Amino acid sequence: MANLIKVAVDCMGGDDDATFVIPGLDKTLRNNNDLSFLLFGDESIIEKRLSNYKYLANSSEIIHTEYHIKMDDKPSHAIKNGKRVSGMWKAIESVRDNRADFVISAGNTGALMAMATLILKTISKIQRPAIAALWPTVDGETIVLDIGATIGFDRRQLIDFSILGASMAQTIFDVESPTLSLLNIGEEEIKGLDEIKAAHEILKNGNNFFKYKGFVEGNKIGFGYSDVIVTDGFSGNIALKTAEGTAAQISQYLKETLNGSMLSKIGYLLARQSFQTLRDKMNPNTLNGGVFLGLNGIVIKSHGKTDHVGFSSALDLGIDMHKSALIDKIVNNIELTEREL
Amino acid sequence: MANLIKVAVDCMGGDDDATFVIPGLDKTLRNNNDLSFLLFGDESIIEKRLSNYKYLANSSEIIHTEYHIKMDDKPSHAIKNGKRVSGMWKAIESVRDNRADFVISAGNTGALMAMATLILKTISKIQRPAIAALWPTVDGETIVLDIGATIGFDRRQLIDFSILGASMAQTIFDVESPTLSLLNIGEEEIKGLDEIKAAHEILKNGNNFFKYKGFVEGNKIGFGYSDVIVTDGFSGNIALKTAEGTAAQISQYLKETLNGSMLSKIGYLLARQSFQTLRDKMNPNTLNGGVFLGLNGIVIKSHGKTDHVGFSSALDLGIDMHKSALIDKIVNNIELTEREL
Repeated sequence: MANLIKVAVDCMGGDDDATFVIPGLDKTLRNNNDLSFLLFGDESIIEKRLSNYKYLANSSEIIHTEYHIKMDDKPSHAIKNGKRVSGMWKAIESVRDNRADFVISAGNTGALMAMATLILKTISKIQRPAIAALWPTVDGETIVLDIGATIGFDRRQLIDFSILGASMAQTIFDVESPTLSLLNIGEEEIKGLDEIKAAHEILKNGNNFFKYKGFVEGNKIGFGYSDVIVTDGFSGNIALKTAEGTAAQISQYLKETLNGSMLSKIGYLLARQSFQTLRDKMNPNTLNGGVFLGLNGIVIKSHGKTDHVGFSSALDLGIDMHKSALIDKIVNNIELTEREL
Repeated sequence: MANLIKVAVDCMGGDDDATFVIPGLDKTLRNNNDLSFLLFGDESIIEKRLSNYKYLANSSEIIHTEYHIKMDDKPSHAIKNGKRVSGMWKAIESVRDNRADFVISAGNTGALMAMATLILKTISKIQRPAIAALWPTVDGETIVLDIGATIGFDRRQLIDFSILGASMAQTIFDVESPTLSLLNIGEEEIKGLDEIKAAHEILKNGNNFFKYKGFVEGNKIGFGYSDVIVTDGFSGNIALKTAEGTAAQISQYLKETLNGSMLSKIGYLLARQSFQTLRDKMNPNTLNGGVFLGLNGIVIKSHGKTDHVGFSSALDLGIDMHKSALIDKIVNNIELTEREL
């Protein structure tokens, strides 16, 4: 038990009253006996939810908080009212104060990012933090960032995101020199916005610790074209949401198809097992977890609309990144990377 | 035959030597006997391809051109070398000179847009043209624009795109007051880029001929949230390409699923007819055709990678828009719309 990992958990953030949090922690704990938890939130609610999870209760300490950030609070409102007193704030603070190794929340993304930036601060030489998503591909997954932490961008931030994303790829894909592409609307060098073209020139000519492959278009993300796809927060968010919507749309078509004729119903029954595999692949929860990158501490953001399997998967991601010392890697990689503008 | 519609066709533009063009024209002609064609391109090639299509040959006039724009020519290169002499250029010119009612090409998008803008010019009070796509949804289709004609944007252009897209919706969906949304990364009013927020204020407070519904996120496009979704060319292109890529990715999963166990193969055989319907829905060709909006003439851009069914579908779209006098509607709607900045 020498290397016990301590996780700070925001127990009140998430849709449907975040009832998936406790069962999600339990699921991961059953496969990792070197974990312990700091549970932030309403003590009576947490205790009630823990009553069916004795093993988890024994590995947890509850820190009672009165104030809870709502899913639709504006970040400014959340900071004004939740600073120092909310479970979300205190959970992040415990990482800064080395009482926890990382923090996980399924709560309000904007509030979490605003608080995390205030408390943990950005890593030296990184201008702005980013949110990285794990994008499912036909042969694994790809890291896509930024998916919405920042609005507006310049070449410098795209280079920062490249360092952050490639460092994360080193830790979770276990590759020394991950491949990396810049999202653009054409693969030819002439296309795209000025700042993207400028970042392209820097990456192309730089002596990077990752392997820069140039521009990539949106249709290749899902085919595992690169380990890391770098984009600005606006485009990244549009791409992610559109992909989610398209998957949901096709799921609906598929359901209608299989509920069509009697023959298709029989066909579906026969192929049921294969369709379960397909559904698993299309389920966003199997790769749940955005990661805030660029801060002095690991912050895992689970989807608000998830279940205990998705929350557990996000937690696993945090454990992985803590174990492989992500923050040290980033700091080291910043020194290694050419950033001449 | 009083209202014969004359279509200018770029016969040399498209992947795979554009062999789908002639069969595509024939397919549409069989359902519309009030069509005639001006075929621009290499006379010997076109004549050879027409040899199996007597009816089409009788409705067509070939205009021989020596120079052909390649799919990967830069627009500047295409203009420099193809001005006045290429089939693409001459086809567009025939619309300007009222020798054709609209032009269709599956060729190089950038070159087509550059030439069309030079020859046809933008409609008075419209700053920049846009490319509109028909996006398949669960209950029909949605017009999304701009999907890549312009890079960079301001509030004024987003309002222009709104007028253009809503005018197109009036003609092809046959609704008096189409619904319209602005693509953004959140539905709350606080989010997004400054110029999008400024356009939102104008649209919200304006006395529009369409029904403005506010912001929409990428995951709702495919569910028919609005008749028209307005965005800048960069984001629109990222969204479209990402949706195409996600559909292709899921197609691959589906194929693997159905080729899995013996039971799934038998299941597939039983449900074959339903899967054909599903494939049709996921086939981008069934709704092929981008439309250049904002120019003094109708320009239909077919996908370069298409087949005769897709090209015919793009042609049908052009016929529809010509018959409903799209350009007049746009000119009229510009006068009707508040554009105070």
